[in-house]
Amino acid sequence: MARVFLSRQRVRYAETDQMGVVYHANYFVWFEAARGEFCRDLGISVPAMEASGLMLPVVEAHCRYKSPARYDDVVRVETVLAELKKHSVTFGYRLFREGEKKLLVEGTTRHGFCDLDGKLTGCPDAYRVLFESCL
Amino acid sequence: MARVFLSRQRVRYAETDQMGVVYHANYFVWFEAARGEFCRDLGISVPAMEASGLMLPVVEAHCRYKSPARYDDVVRVETVLAELKKHSVTFGYRLFREGEKKLLVEGTTRHGFCDLDGKLTGCPDAYRVLFESCL
Amino acid sequence: MARVFLSRQRVRYAETDQMGVVYHANYFVWFEAARGEFCRDLGISVPAMEASGLMLPVVEAHCRYKSPARYDDVVRVETVLAELKKHSVTFGYRLFREGEKKLLVEGTTRHGFCDLDGKLTGCPDAYRVLFESCL
Amino acid sequence: MARVFLSRQRVRYAETDQMGVVYHANYFVWFEAARGEFCRDLGISVPAMEASGLMLPVVEAHCRYKSPARYDDVVRVETVLAELKKHSVTFGYRLFREGEKKLLVEGTTRHGFCDLDGKLTGCPDAYRVLFESCL
Repeated sequence: MARVFLSRQRVRYAETDQMGVVYHANYFVWFEAARGEFCRDLGISVPAMEASGLMLPVVEAHCRYKSPARYDDVVRVETVLAELKKHSVTFGYRLFREGEKKLLVEGTTRHGFCDLDGKLTGCPDAYRVLFESCL
Repeated sequence: MARVFLSRQRVRYAETDQMGVVYHANYFVWFEAARGEFCRDLGISVPAMEASGLMLPVVEAHCRYKSPARYDDVVRVETVLAELKKHSVTFGYRLFREGEKKLLVEGTTRHGFCDLDGKLTGCPDAYRVLFESCL
Repeated sequence: MARVFLSRQRVRYAETDQMGVVYHANYFVWFEAARGEFCRDLGISVPAMEASGLMLPVVEAHCRYKSPARYDDVVRVETVLAELKKHSVTFGYRLFREGEKKLLVEGTTRHGFCDLDGKLTGCPDAYRVLFESCL
Repeated sequence: MARVFLSRQRVRYAETDQMGVVYHANYFVWFEAARGEFCRDLGISVPAMEASGLMLPVVEAHCRYKSPARYDDVVRVETVLAELKKHSVTFGYRLFREGEKKLLVEGTTRHGFCDLDGKLTGCPDAYRVLFESCL
């Protein structure tokens, strides 16, 4: 049973656009914030991981927009580790307005296990064990 | 033969992150800028289109990251109209560093033809004719 | 004795730049988030205020950068209502790394009391009373 | 007679907010882009300057907002080198809608001459001569 991690974002004015809704690219920023909290909850400090020489740059990103979030909404983000491969890990995200069941947005980001030069390496065992525990 | 429209972006410091490369979500902002220039070149003013009641919100976005753009790079964006359906239009983007042939990033955005309330409508004929001319 | 309201921001990767620190313009976004929480705590819903026809656009902004915030830091924002005039209100902000006393950044934003067309109006009494209670 | 350098920015949808105008913090991003073009025109490559160990982080920023820029506007930025001191340089910016004379926004950014660790150093003579030529 996949681990689902919950986090929340309060929508900023800066994140809206003149359509009166959240600008589409900003959901990827929330994905990043949610992923960071997912890792922290798992015992992984992203700064420490990067200091150890393991980078997780985004190699693919996807998002479907069903219904818009608006200024001052509290958005609930459900994050899962969707897939773990030799050279990459994929996170999945589903967003809801707090207290509601209607899906706003769903997306994925795939990340390569890279060294500081951006070269694909594998995932060190210590991290792999932690990631595997979420599947 | 699909029409390929070229536009350019100079990478801003604001668009980089601490990995020393362009933050992944910002490519979607460049897609938007490139799409706007594509439309302008086609004779479509996005502000006028919106004033007439036709909105094109992003309903799906996708990007593959091959190689990073960096601060001060001039990035060349090739934009095409990839698909035209009854209720949506899809744009495709390929990014290169100016003067180079190595693909940096490729992506797509799909847009619904909506009214001001975000309800899916069709595409008015005047715009459809213009979009069709690019396929 | 001025009311000091505390709020917190976790630094996102998106908010860093290639210098490895938070990009300077992003502090103004945190000021906005802090101001929104200040108002909420005071019983003012910014969306409701705007729906009633009162807008508070920024007419002046200032920031001094002493020491940088970094990715994953929890930043504590102290917000005060610094000045209340007939046509404008000024908020002041001081930022610290959570648990530390060293000032990172301090700034102000001044806001006009405007109608939906951006014309300066006064501040309705109901809001003025609330703002005055913070001085 | 101070050198005034002109550059232009096309307003992106991403830069607007739900008030239908450019979000106030984004003007500082345009200041940065304008400053980069100012330096380039002067023969200074910011990436090369940083590679040589000279950083120019923002130590103070200020902006007055007179009239808003809107989506798709072409904004003309007039940049000047306003002040040159032993440890800092200040740039000034004035923004107009292309073809118009009404001031939209004016601001300044002050930058420290720092080494890679963020410690204040002086300005190397080669750069100082170039900056002095603009006063």
